[in-house]
Amino acid sequence: MAEPTLEQLREQIDGLDEQLQGLLNKRAELAQKVADVKIATDGDAVFYRPEREAQVLRQVKARNTGPLDAETIARLFREIMSACLALEQRLKVAFLGPEGTFTQQAALKHFGHAVETISLAAIDDVFREVASGAAHYGVVPVENSTEGVINHTLDSFMESPLKICGEVDLRIHHHLMLSEHTQLDKITRIYSHQQTLAQCRKWLDTNMPRVERIAVSSNAQAARRLKDEWNAAAIAGDIAADLYDLKILHRNIEDTPDNTTRFIIIGHEEVPPSGEDKSSLLVRMKNRPGALYHVLKPFKDAGVDLTRVESRPSRSGNWSYVFFIDFEGHRDDENVQAVLAALEREALDVRLLGSYPRAVL
Amino acid sequence: MAEPTLEQLREQIDGLDEQLQGLLNKRAELAQKVADVKIATDGDAVFYRPEREAQVLRQVKARNTGPLDAETIARLFREIMSACLALEQRLKVAFLGPEGTFTQQAALKHFGHAVETISLAAIDDVFREVASGAAHYGVVPVENSTEGVINHTLDSFMESPLKICGEVDLRIHHHLMLSEHTQLDKITRIYSHQQTLAQCRKWLDTNMPRVERIAVSSNAQAARRLKDEWNAAAIAGDIAADLYDLKILHRNIEDTPDNTTRFIIIGHEEVPPSGEDKSSLLVRMKNRPGALYHVLKPFKDAGVDLTRVESRPSRSGNWSYVFFIDFEGHRDDENVQAVLAALEREALDVRLLGSYPRAVL
Repeated sequence: MAEPTLEQLREQIDGLDEQLQGLLNKRAELAQKVADVKIATDGDAVFYRPEREAQVLRQVKARNTGPLDAETIARLFREIMSACLALEQRLKVAFLGPEGTFTQQAALKHFGHAVETISLAAIDDVFREVASGAAHYGVVPVENSTEGVINHTLDSFMESPLKICGEVDLRIHHHLMLSEHTQLDKITRIYSHQQTLAQCRKWLDTNMPRVERIAVSSNAQAARRLKDEWNAAAIAGDIAADLYDLKILHRNIEDTPDNTTRFIIIGHEEVPPSGEDKSSLLVRMKNRPGALYHVLKPFKDAGVDLTRVESRPSRSGNWSYVFFIDFEGHRDDENVQAVLAALEREALDVRLLGSYPRAVL
Repeated sequence: MAEPTLEQLREQIDGLDEQLQGLLNKRAELAQKVADVKIATDGDAVFYRPEREAQVLRQVKARNTGPLDAETIARLFREIMSACLALEQRLKVAFLGPEGTFTQQAALKHFGHAVETISLAAIDDVFREVASGAAHYGVVPVENSTEGVINHTLDSFMESPLKICGEVDLRIHHHLMLSEHTQLDKITRIYSHQQTLAQCRKWLDTNMPRVERIAVSSNAQAARRLKDEWNAAAIAGDIAADLYDLKILHRNIEDTPDNTTRFIIIGHEEVPPSGEDKSSLLVRMKNRPGALYHVLKPFKDAGVDLTRVESRPSRSGNWSYVFFIDFEGHRDDENVQAVLAALEREALDVRLLGSYPRAVL
């Protein structure tokens, strides 16, 4: 049998596109019916269901046979769901700006492009915008190790009733960059945040073993310094290169290719279990010897896996500490409830910030 | 018959998603076969075909019955095509940075999100990156009336062999913004680019009739000024508000809701006709009386509609002028060829910068 011609293949694609379009609109119709049922049963219906979206995306990834890879097709379904949801309700999502930052990328990755994003200048503002109802959800960085913003986010939770209802991981790349003044053969030092220098250690050992590494407060700060120095380079991301008009000499020099930064979604609702969930907890303890041990023991006893622990002094008094704890599981799980009950007995304060689907994309 | 329950509707959606997924992967397979045929017939095959994509998107919009609107479903197909193309070739698209600008938005709107975007600091750099082959395509603003960058783009064409192979229109919104020092009840002047002030005239007449309007060189410049003034406001876009940390008091105050800015796609290939095309032309004329008349007459004679004419002094000599002309039609059309032949007789130089599909999205 002869191979199909270009013309024939394009006709096949056209036919297939027509079917696809029919199904997409059919899906939108069904989504409208779902909304109708929700409105009929609950006047104050919530249209966006993070746990349901996570389940759909997991199913899509699990049954995928290619040739589109699982990540790509899940991304397409994210956009399809985003478009269907927008028929019922155009979500407003506030994020820590400015436009074009990783946080905006995270917002669009999580919600798809059929939402309205609102760029705000500070993490506090994002919390306020969501708390007041001006935005449905907010997106803030929570583990941006190189820029140190994590503290603002955690502090904001101490004073806010908002819940965590999702998480997003973004892959972050580091580049070696120069300014226009830099003399390539005379580089004697490299600036970056300590964490970034550590993440690029192998590359630096191999490629620039004799150059001094100088840790500064942020990668953006490192990039800014190059302006006035002719014998220095910096390691930072694309945005810093743009901002300070630097030339990228080597891209993606981080040692671990899956260097990610974590963001959380804040909102008003508690999210029901999706089957694969995480939770975040805030615990305030009296500052006595062994406080950390007492916080962590209930998790071990109940067989609950921790994914992260941060501790910091409480703002509300010199003699107490606050722990931020991420763990596997959902507030509705029995073993999680056992942990919470045990912590209530030990701690001054226990607040579950939220249970939410583990990041799918 | 009873209305379906939420559970039943979700089962229907799940079944439909499975079909959708099958079709999406089938489409990707067909796209791979198209690529195979192209490689078999031409070693140096071009996988991205702007005219074909424009045709597919037009068809999708034309046959759409809803409930998803034509714009939304075309956007989904843009992403589907983008993902299928990425299986063969991940396009590299250079744009005028920094990240988060309208130009990046235009690039993603045109190419979908499955491309690699490269942010560059100047329009010249975008031309160079594409000319050298480091990027497949470039995206530059050509009619950003408020920021005045158009000249750089047009000048770059005078010295570059690259072709225009597409156009993108983006809707632009203007907002009234204040700094933290501004005393709301004491505003005596409003800064903005002259063009923007004109675009918001009705709103200003109605809402701030007594406030002085001061035209400055760009909207960004207007936003920057607020830093040191307590009795002024500015009109500018979201990006400027972010950049200078301003508070938006009123959104979308432009009089015409469809205020758009135009971008062009530059590349190496000439694009075959898509059925609805535009062309851009560069004509250099001796500076004699009636030059403009002689340039425009051939269009009128051949019944070719002009969409834009710009003239500026040529760099290569004091006594000649350069005209940039956009018109409806394709280089392969007979009446367009008649125009070109007539212009050849009148002008010092005639260069067709490209024929390309009219913007679909």
